[in-house]
Amino acid sequence: MLQRFAENPLIEPEQVTPSREDFEVVCAFNTGAVRLDDGTVLLLMRVAERPRAVPQDCAAAVVSDFTAGQARLKVLRVHKDDPDYKPIDPRWFAYRGQRYLTSLSHLRIARSRDGRHFEVDPGPAVSVEQPYEEFGLEDPRITRIEGRYWITYTAVSRHGICTALVSTSDFCNFERKGVIFAPENRDVTIFPEKVGGRYVCHHRPVPHAIGEASMWLAWSDDLVGWGGHCWVMGGRPEQWDSGRIGGGAVPIKTDRGWLAIYHGADRQLRYCLGAVLLDREEPGRVLARSTEPILAPEADYETQGFFGNVVFSCGAVVQDELLTVYYGAADRCTAGASVRLAELLDHLEPV
Amino acid sequence: MLQRFAENPLIEPEQVTPSREDFEVVCAFNTGAVRLDDGTVLLLMRVAERPRAVPQDCAAAVVSDFTAGQARLKVLRVHKDDPDYKPIDPRWFAYRGQRYLTSLSHLRIARSRDGRHFEVDPGPAVSVEQPYEEFGLEDPRITRIEGRYWITYTAVSRHGICTALVSTSDFCNFERKGVIFAPENRDVTIFPEKVGGRYVCHHRPVPHAIGEASMWLAWSDDLVGWGGHCWVMGGRPEQWDSGRIGGGAVPIKTDRGWLAIYHGADRQLRYCLGAVLLDREEPGRVLARSTEPILAPEADYETQGFFGNVVFSCGAVVQDELLTVYYGAADRCTAGASVRLAELLDHLEPV
Repeated sequence: MLQRFAENPLIEPEQVTPSREDFEVVCAFNTGAVRLDDGTVLLLMRVAERPRAVPQDCAAAVVSDFTAGQARLKVLRVHKDDPDYKPIDPRWFAYRGQRYLTSLSHLRIARSRDGRHFEVDPGPAVSVEQPYEEFGLEDPRITRIEGRYWITYTAVSRHGICTALVSTSDFCNFERKGVIFAPENRDVTIFPEKVGGRYVCHHRPVPHAIGEASMWLAWSDDLVGWGGHCWVMGGRPEQWDSGRIGGGAVPIKTDRGWLAIYHGADRQLRYCLGAVLLDREEPGRVLARSTEPILAPEADYETQGFFGNVVFSCGAVVQDELLTVYYGAADRCTAGASVRLAELLDHLEPV
Repeated sequence: MLQRFAENPLIEPEQVTPSREDFEVVCAFNTGAVRLDDGTVLLLMRVAERPRAVPQDCAAAVVSDFTAGQARLKVLRVHKDDPDYKPIDPRWFAYRGQRYLTSLSHLRIARSRDGRHFEVDPGPAVSVEQPYEEFGLEDPRITRIEGRYWITYTAVSRHGICTALVSTSDFCNFERKGVIFAPENRDVTIFPEKVGGRYVCHHRPVPHAIGEASMWLAWSDDLVGWGGHCWVMGGRPEQWDSGRIGGGAVPIKTDRGWLAIYHGADRQLRYCLGAVLLDREEPGRVLARSTEPILAPEADYETQGFFGNVVFSCGAVVQDELLTVYYGAADRCTAGASVRLAELLDHLEPV
């Protein structure tokens, strides 16, 4: 359904300057996206780094030490022969019963005039500062509300995977608003305007004893305190989104309702993109949904990378009724694809 | 540390009238507690019921059907020989990949003049009405704020274990405020007054990929939308609270700080009660904590029941500096125990 840009990948990790000399950038992906008033497309990327020069027989994680009051990064290096070391997948390992990420992520800005050729900032925009983000900041989503930008991001620490919020008016100064969703919860997309007088967002809690990782909705008066949680939709058995699903790009208001791009994974962790149309006044009500993925990992840069067979979006922009979806490919690089809004809406199956 | 009442158990399931003729009451436990202005001690109990006359070779669950717009209870009966049936423990079974509770709980009022002899209402106070509580309402905690009572409770549905809120001024009319914490989250205790101008509560999210079930804090302006989540304390390795811990009774303001009764389980799911003292102005800061349990399951009614070796509190009252903790014993009945506040506070170890 979505047409890939010929320029793909748009941003590769090799283009991104590491934040420290002893680090290398391994992934530049999962970008929030917004079109600024001057027409610039601004992407806020998740940039994942790892320590350089780690011997083949070692695993390493960057961890943050807050004992001196502010974050100081330290490298934890573990020999793979260590009986306390347990590999999980390229993204994780466990050591002495604690899970660690193999990379540390921060948020970095890239800008483009045409939405296809990007210039990446030389340094981070938002990086580890608080204990709740000691293992990194991931997957930002940008919502513009009355001239101010509200950015949700995944904050990872030893205590869990949460969603936190920062706001900015200029993408230079960022104001932290703390953790808005307790663990485990990510994929939070705030709608760009109030619905029925209140702010609303999608979020994706991961239940434990009962239930599946599904999309929920919550309401707020101030974007910081969220309540009125209700379940919106879950995975569909035996389909491409039978495993976990979650919000992708910030929902887009259309004549027919709220259009949301979401991701769905199957049990083999193949991540595709789908779309869903929600009622304009009751955004918890699903009107239509894509039966087939609107984008599935097929190109080389989508099937092979840091974690293969993944397309995952955190942002999209609309201009002249053309929807451009930016997405992370194989958890490694950033790509883009587009479709006419009307064509996408026509394609959704009424529920 | 706590002295059990000689009258224990105070309330047993046999004393409680079933809500339907075809049900039997199996548990009457985990009571929120409050002292009313006229001196009455009011307990709001979790009453668990199951269908009568289920053959030995069958498992049964009561489920709620909302297709007609309002809740209609139905009994799901499964033959234990069914290859799709999987027993878990006395509280749960799985059928066709979905978990079910073996009982359905509602909230029921009991009243006492002396805090030891209780009269139980003939019918439920709050019972299944919303899809998010289709598998029942559990473990209420009552907070009185300026003459109104705010009751958090565990709402269980196929989508997960959440915390919802109702409020009342008279314990006759209850106003639902919806789900305030998305799954998996329970053991929510709202502090009885604002701290630094905002409402505050303890909650207990259960992380998935990383982290342990621990006590967190959140802030609110209206008791419905919650944010500013921060981790407060977790289990202690190799101790009685090495497994999951969570809030118990609503925190009590003392000269030395906020006193909270909490529960902790070890890896064998033996549940004990502990106490923690938190800073009056910064309730995320732990000042002191009990090294040993203040109550451990030892009495017969605590070690044997629906789920043995459990003491679990949802409420306590204070009068004349005497703290009375009401608690569920062996997930079956309600008991009480008391201690002088000063004695309990002296017993806590500074952290």
